[in-house]
Amino acid sequence: MLVMGVDPGLTTTGFGVVRTGAGSPDVRAAGVIRTEAGSPTATRLDVLYQDLRELIEEVRPEVMAIERVFVNRNRLTATQVGQASGVIMLAASRAGLEVFEYSPSAVKAIVTGDGRASKKQVQQMVARRLGLRPTPAPADAADALAIALCHMQSMGNRLGRVEAAARGAAG
Amino acid sequence: MLVMGVDPGLTTTGFGVVRTGAGSPDVRAAGVIRTEAGSPTATRLDVLYQDLRELIEEVRPEVMAIERVFVNRNRLTATQVGQASGVIMLAASRAGLEVFEYSPSAVKAIVTGDGRASKKQVQQMVARRLGLRPTPAPADAADALAIALCHMQSMGNRLGRVEAAARGAAG
Repeated sequence: MLVMGVDPGLTTTGFGVVRTGAGSPDVRAAGVIRTEAGSPTATRLDVLYQDLRELIEEVRPEVMAIERVFVNRNRLTATQVGQASGVIMLAASRAGLEVFEYSPSAVKAIVTGDGRASKKQVQQMVARRLGLRPTPAPADAADALAIALCHMQSMGNRLGRVEAAARGAAG
Repeated sequence: MLVMGVDPGLTTTGFGVVRTGAGSPDVRAAGVIRTEAGSPTATRLDVLYQDLRELIEEVRPEVMAIERVFVNRNRLTATQVGQASGVIMLAASRAGLEVFEYSPSAVKAIVTGDGRASKKQVQQMVARRLGLRPTPAPADAADALAIALCHMQSMGNRLGRVEAAARGAAG
């Protein structure tokens, strides 16, 4: 399975594409899409959408895992993250990808086992799980890889539970 | 000039297209785009985007005036309005429309002369200015017409000021 993790933002959107299979997961792509702070919002959203569509076309992930928008104290940032996540989810939908959303605390809890883990702890765990050294930069790309890893583990856990339930029913 | 006013929302987006020229402004189209509350967010954003692109293709407005997202106490709604406004602005950008944003209080102030006017006062003024009777329903379409009217008046005021300045300079 090829999973694209996305950390949405109007100025900087992080992405990280991870492949899982028989062996340990490996990173196929990671980086950021940036838009110019001085441009009109509509233009910035257009750049983000087009760059992401091209990236999806190139890398061909099967699903997208995206950080759920969290309305925080900074209203302008919250609005911009909402707008960015809207066009990112649209790009995924129009490319035929299924979209899964994870809250920041779910990402921490699933990746490290602790919903209140620090950003650094999450990044260290991501680097260890993906055999990366040092931690990938920029930070937004590392966060996106954490979201991709979160989705893979979440799916693995769910399959594990289904298998356990099936074994229970069979026994 | 053909202006499309938009009141963004994930469940219901209002639109109203107004033409201005020599005579009084007239309404070319007004209504709402709805998406199913039970569907995944990505699917709903896709429906909104596609319906709006078709509408723009059909009506061919030259500019879009959209209500600026206002982060209020309801976090889920604020996020959804942000996501919806993102794909709406993207649709405008990809169709070559210039986008103008107006805050709710700016719409009230420009249309009625009072930034704290009630929703009803705004709708009554819109109905009067556009020669509509009764007030257009649903309310989201009426709000979109108010935003279109706000843009037209705002542009008119600016042009008025430019002309006055030019006259002043010439005199």
